[in-house]
Amino acid sequence: MEIILAEHAGFCFGVNRAMDLALKIGKDKDGKVHTLGPLIHNPQAVKKLEEVDVRVESDIEKITEGTVIIRSHGVPPEILEQAEKQELEVVNATCPFVKTAQRNAKELMEEGYDVVISGDQDHPEVIAILGYTDNQAIIVQDESDFEKLDNLKKAGVVAQTTQSLERLQKLTAYLLKNVSELKVYNTICTTTGQRQREAARLSKKVDMMIVIGGYNSANTNRLAEICSESGVKTHHIERAEELNKDWFKNIKKVGITAGASTPNWIIKEVLKRMSEIKEKHEENL
Amino acid sequence: MEIILAEHAGFCFGVNRAMDLALKIGKDKDGKVHTLGPLIHNPQAVKKLEEVDVRVESDIEKITEGTVIIRSHGVPPEILEQAEKQELEVVNATCPFVKTAQRNAKELMEEGYDVVISGDQDHPEVIAILGYTDNQAIIVQDESDFEKLDNLKKAGVVAQTTQSLERLQKLTAYLLKNVSELKVYNTICTTTGQRQREAARLSKKVDMMIVIGGYNSANTNRLAEICSESGVKTHHIERAEELNKDWFKNIKKVGITAGASTPNWIIKEVLKRMSEIKEKHEENL
Ligand code: F3S
Ligand code: F3S
Repeated sequence: MEIILAEHAGFCFGVNRAMDLALKIGKDKDGKVHTLGPLIHNPQAVKKLEEVDVRVESDIEKITEGTVIIRSHGVPPEILEQAEKQELEVVNATCPFVKTAQRNAKELMEEGYDVVISGDQDHPEVIAILGYTDNQAIIVQDESDFEKLDNLKKAGVVAQTTQSLERLQKLTAYLLKNVSELKVYNTICTTTGQRQREAARLSKKVDMMIVIGGYNSANTNRLAEICSESGVKTHHIERAEELNKDWFKNIKKVGITAGASTPNWIIKEVLKRMSEIKEKHEENL
Repeated sequence: MEIILAEHAGFCFGVNRAMDLALKIGKDKDGKVHTLGPLIHNPQAVKKLEEVDVRVESDIEKITEGTVIIRSHGVPPEILEQAEKQELEVVNATCPFVKTAQRNAKELMEEGYDVVISGDQDHPEVIAILGYTDNQAIIVQDESDFEKLDNLKKAGVVAQTTQSLERLQKLTAYLLKNVSELKVYNTICTTTGQRQREAARLSKKVDMMIVIGGYNSANTNRLAEICSESGVKTHHIERAEELNKDWFKNIKKVGITAGASTPNWIIKEVLKRMSEIKEKHEENL
């Protein structure tokens, strides 16, 4: 049995970077270390950070000393100012791609554009970007928000990094009806699309796909769907323990991928368990 | 019988302005006066200009003295330089909206954008705009040209003033797939849309529509189509002489509109003839 791990499986660049930073700080620092909100929505990851004494705190005012780690989504500039006021040491793990979106939004505002953010209004990343426009930007989640755009003359657009291209395209098409000038920074991160395209490609080359990630993770579910739709038998698992050796009878090639919130060590555990199953199968032959 | 003339019938602002300028220059100047190419594609208009000694010449080098009138479409900057070299007096009747498109294209190029012009590659307006980008811009006529855009990183778009919004929207949607930055000046002139919307509105209020304009004029044909599609009996005519009084039996309200290349005096002739028909009808009652 051949086991093929997708190249873009698991954490994206930005989350991986934030996690590495947080683990390093946790090990190196003597004082208290907090992440502002969970670094990633994955219980195993949060637990792993707790092991190096990195705790989660959602309210900046409750962090009275030590180090605060800003997660990959970023925060509004007010939070950074607040942290400074409280004399906290700030480790800013905002993803560089998210930072670009923040900077673009700020520039657009300074250049006199009416700033429009294509994204989910409750998402921390979007709230952070909004902060970089002095909370002036218009957030457009879907077509029901388009009416907010009818009086703009000069629109400047940025997108949440995980936004779908289609939504951004619909937004700009709508804006073009009204405005005389439109500037768009396409800040959509290519990671999600890459992972999905790679999963689809891999699905066509194997007899079975294993997709690793939280059952509640939207992007992992989408990934499992993409594999199924390619016509290959697909198992979505959260942990290595769920692997069942009976699944692999008569299977020659297995493909493995993982959602963006799936930590590398869970992927490693799965790979280890798969090797054991493989060896057992080969002994039985 | 009630006769209603559409507000936006006939010449658009820019063509009207160019025609007025040309007629005035023709009357005021003693020396030779030429338009560089026909001021408007309408034989009656060209004839009217000839009456005040304004002649058409398509090659700038053949105009050796006197005044040259630049038409509403505009010209590439090289032509203006050439005219200066030949010591001609230049009367620039480029439509202000077209001038804006030229200026926007130039600015985009200077700001480091790869300039894209959404328009017809052989149209004089597009050729002029292209000139303002040192002939560097990419012209996109339809989807078959999209492949020219695949390596752009930072795209700046302007549109031919008579471009359809839909084409501009398709172009920007395509560009968003590839580029990280996109700036669009929506230079589409609202005149065409206004005239069409008004014709559709008027069609619904009357028993018959008369659409005046050249049989070869694309925009006049489109206008006649729009009226027909509204379900009202529509006659497309070029000249007042074509009006047939029998058409108006039992007609209570007639709407009149005209294409963008239809001179005002032709519209006036039609209105005059319509009044005569109206009077005859009323005498017979
Ligand atoms: S956090 Fe991840 S999804 Fe992209 S924007 Fe940064 S690499
Ligand atoms: S020439 Fe006419 S169509 Fe518009 S751009 Fe100028 S008013």
